[in-house]
Amino acid sequence: MPKSDLLIRFGVSMEQSLLREFDSLCAEKGYANRSEAIRDMIRDLLVEKELANENTEGVGTLTLIYNHHQRELEEKLTEYQHHHLQAIISTVHIHLTHHLCLEVMLLKGKTKDIKKIADGLIATKGVKHGKLVLTTAGKEK
Amino acid sequence: MPKSDLLIRFGVSMEQSLLREFDSLCAEKGYANRSEAIRDMIRDLLVEKELANENTEGVGTLTLIYNHHQRELEEKLTEYQHHHLQAIISTVHIHLTHHLCLEVMLLKGKTKDIKKIADGLIATKGVKHGKLVLTTAGKEK
Amino acid sequence: MPKSDLLIRFGVSMEQSLLREFDSLCAEKGYANRSEAIRDMIRDLLVEKELANENTEGVGTLTLIYNHHQRELEEKLTEYQHHHLQAIISTVHIHLTHHLCLEVMLLKGKTKDIKKIADGLIATKGVKHGKLVLTTAGKEK
Amino acid sequence: MPKSDLLIRFGVSMEQSLLREFDSLCAEKGYANRSEAIRDMIRDLLVEKELANENTEGVGTLTLIYNHHQRELEEKLTEYQHHHLQAIISTVHIHLTHHLCLEVMLLKGKTKDIKKIADGLIATKGVKHGKLVLTTAGKEK
Repeated sequence: MPKSDLLIRFGVSMEQSLLREFDSLCAEKGYANRSEAIRDMIRDLLVEKELANENTEGVGTLTLIYNHHQRELEEKLTEYQHHHLQAIISTVHIHLTHHLCLEVMLLKGKTKDIKKIADGLIATKGVKHGKLVLTTAGKEK
Repeated sequence: MPKSDLLIRFGVSMEQSLLREFDSLCAEKGYANRSEAIRDMIRDLLVEKELANENTEGVGTLTLIYNHHQRELEEKLTEYQHHHLQAIISTVHIHLTHHLCLEVMLLKGKTKDIKKIADGLIATKGVKHGKLVLTTAGKEK
Repeated sequence: MPKSDLLIRFGVSMEQSLLREFDSLCAEKGYANRSEAIRDMIRDLLVEKELANENTEGVGTLTLIYNHHQRELEEKLTEYQHHHLQAIISTVHIHLTHHLCLEVMLLKGKTKDIKKIADGLIATKGVKHGKLVLTTAGKEK
Repeated sequence: MPKSDLLIRFGVSMEQSLLREFDSLCAEKGYANRSEAIRDMIRDLLVEKELANENTEGVGTLTLIYNHHQRELEEKLTEYQHHHLQAIISTVHIHLTHHLCLEVMLLKGKTKDIKKIADGLIATKGVKHGKLVLTTAGKEK
C-alpha cells in the first residue's frame, strides 16, 4: 500500500440474519471491525487469483519433516539447497523428536520454479512429509 | 432467509487501490454490485465453518467416474446405494466415453455419514475417480 | 482403460509401521486390497495435474443453493443456462427447505470455460452458495 | 520410524497405461523409485486424517505479510506472540519490499489452539495476508 493510498468508504447491504452471523465470526476470529475482515477476504481472493498464474513472482514457505538418521540425507538436502541458492532465502530448523527434524524454508521466485524445488525436496528419500504454501506480495496490496 | 429478514446497510472503508482490484474481480466474476460479492464471501466462510463440525446436517454432491465394462460393477454400485436409501436423494448418469460413465449422486445427512458412504463408493473396484463436495442449507442463510 | 490394457505387477517396500497404518486406512475406507487404494491415489494425482492446465477438457459438477422466492431468479438461471447450452449436460433440482432449492448442473468443456459459467451462476443475486468440482475422463485412465 | 522398523515388500498390480503415467509423474517430481512416491502419498493421507481431529498435537507454519509502516503493528504482533510463548517455537523475518514484511512463525500444540492463535494474528490491522499450514510428526511415521 503506497502511503498516499486514499481510504474510500462505501455502503454494503445485507440481511440482518446474515450480518449477525458475520459479526459472530468476526468476534471469534478477533477482527476489530467488519471492514478489516472484509478487506482480508478480498485480499485472499486476489492472492489466490494471482497464484493461478504460475509465472507470478511469489514467496513460498516449505515445511519439511524428515528423519535425520537417514543416511546422508542432511548432506543431500544441503547440497540440493545450494543448487538453488538464488531461490532459497532462509531456512529454520527445529528438533522435533529424537528422530525427526522440522525444516522450514522460505523461497522466492516464479511460483512454478518454487513448486519444482519443493517437489525435489519432498521427493528425497528420508523426507517424511512436506507441505508448500504460496503467497504473493502482490501489487503491495 | 425468512421473508421478513430486514436489509441492513453499513459502511466499509478500504484503500482505493484495493477497492479498484476488488471492482475488477467483481466485474470478472459477473457480480452486479459489491454487496452481492461480499455476501457471497461471507456465506462461503460460514458454510466452511459449519462443515468443520462433522455432525452438521449437510448435502453432498458425489461425482464418480467408472468403467462400466468392469464386471458386476453396476450391480455393486446399485446394491450399495440401496443399502443407503435414506441418504441418497437422487442420481444422474452420463455416458462419458465408450468405456467411462459419470455418475453424480446427491446425498443428505450428517456430513460424517455422507463422507463414509462416498468413501465406500470411491473404493469400489472399477470406480476410477471420485470427488465429494459438501455444503449446507445452514440456517437458511 | 482400453480392454487390452495389461495388468502389471511390481513390488513396493515400506516400513512395517507405515504399512500397518495404511492397512487400517484401507479397511476404514472400504478398499478390498492395497492395489486398489494405491491406484486411486495415483489417479487422483494425475487428474489434479491435468486440471492445473485450464485448457484441459473436463467435466464439472456445480452445486448451487438458491432462494426460489427471489424475484425472477429462476427465469434468470434458466436463461443463463440456455446461453450455455453446449456446455450444460443436465441439471437436477431438489426442494431443500421451504425457501431453498438445490440445483446440481453437469458441465463439460475446457476447464476455464466451465469455471467462467460457474462464476456467472454463483454471482447471480439470490444464489446463496455455490461449489464447483472439476474432474476429467483423462486418457481413459 | 523406530530404527528397528522392518522393511516389508509387497506386490501391487496396475494397468500398464496407468503405470506409465505414474512413472512419468515420479520422474517429473524427482522420486528415485515408485516405493518412495507411494510411501509419500500414504503419509500425506495419514497426516490429513490425523489433522481432521482438532485435538491432535501438531506443528503449524504461519506465513504473514504485513505493512511495517502501520502504526504500532510490530508492537502488537510482538505482544501477541509473547502472550502465546509456549506455542510459538520461533519466528523468521524477511524484508520483502519497501513497505512489506514477511514473517514466518513455527507453532506447536493442539491444532485447534494453533488455528486460534493464527486467526488472531491474521485479524490484526495491517496484516495483509496470512496462511497457516498444519502438519504432524505423527507416530514418527
